[in-house]
Amino acid sequence: MNFSSKLIEKAVDAFATLPGIGRKTALRLVLHLLRQDKSVTEQLATALSSMREGIRECRECHNLADEDICRICADPRRDHSLVCVVENIRDLMAIEDTGQYRGLYHLLGGIISPIEGIGPADLHIDSLLERVQKGEIREVIMAISPTIEGETTVYYLSKKLQLSAVLVSAIARGVSFGGDLEYADELTLGRSIVARIPYVR
Amino acid sequence: MNFSSKLIEKAVDAFATLPGIGRKTALRLVLHLLRQDKSVTEQLATALSSMREGIRECRECHNLADEDICRICADPRRDHSLVCVVENIRDLMAIEDTGQYRGLYHLLGGIISPIEGIGPADLHIDSLLERVQKGEIREVIMAISPTIEGETTVYYLSKKLQLSAVLVSAIARGVSFGGDLEYADELTLGRSIVARIPYVR
Repeated sequence: MNFSSKLIEKAVDAFATLPGIGRKTALRLVLHLLRQDKSVTEQLATALSSMREGIRECRECHNLADEDICRICADPRRDHSLVCVVENIRDLMAIEDTGQYRGLYHLLGGIISPIEGIGPADLHIDSLLERVQKGEIREVIMAISPTIEGETTVYYLSKKLQLSAVLVSAIARGVSFGGDLEYADELTLGRSIVARIPYVR
Repeated sequence: MNFSSKLIEKAVDAFATLPGIGRKTALRLVLHLLRQDKSVTEQLATALSSMREGIRECRECHNLADEDICRICADPRRDHSLVCVVENIRDLMAIEDTGQYRGLYHLLGGIISPIEGIGPADLHIDSLLERVQKGEIREVIMAISPTIEGETTVYYLSKKLQLSAVLVSAIARGVSFGGDLEYADELTLGRSIVARIPYVR
């Protein structure tokens, strides 16, 4: 693309470094900002700067936080005896969005993956064990994706937690609500029959 | 979406005001920035701020410019006797990208559209006539989209320019290069037969 302005070129280049944004989209965004009031751009620039400068990792659960302790860990109304182990902040947010969970979290920062060279030492496992050792935690819920790497991670963690008195559980797996049996994958459907539960009337 | 950080929430909200970017995409962009070095975010924020603050409208052609005069109008190597009239900066860029045109431009800032309430007075038509009256311009090329509004605009401009000695031309219309005749629309194909040109051997 041929810009007649260095300023536009720089803004387009900066936008285009973001994932999923090509130079055509970047130009569309820049032209949009130029049509809006100056304050819109200023707000975007400030929001991004202060976010990147201000964000920290929660000392307790490794969630992204504005303070030393994240809003979830700092919330006294949440159940501090319950910890849900997730891979990353996306999974945390997905669970938060359900509105069904009122305990705390622990972000591993990934899962054990020998192929990608990620071992237990690369994950926030020691800090989880430390949290459990403090004795306040009653139950650790594994909410890790049901992949081979995920299952390996859950197995590793459950072994490590065996020595402590904490209860280890895992989120339920089965056919989705609203999902058609016909389209469920064989593994999920098969497991859902094996792990059937009594029907509550 | 449930954020545990006000900073992230604000950044996501700011990104999500942009066209074509929803909150899920905005979050993906924010998390991407958090994984990158701080300088990446700083560069984006600065590029956007200085772009929005610094950009001006070219005094001559109404193109977006870093100075009072845009890079195209200020370029002495370009043919200053040739002016291509376009609707907006996107069309200008499309023509620049072809690398086939070495004259100047004039951005109308829109086209005459009674339905949208855009009349000749809302467009940069007077400044085009002023430029032509100065006598340096030899030819005005109409590069306006071939819609009803576009044709109306071209007709209006050609009438206005009739009094001056300037040559008025329009970009060629016809079947696209590489285009299949079968898939060309009827109007374009029909006109391309009526307006056929001698075959050059």
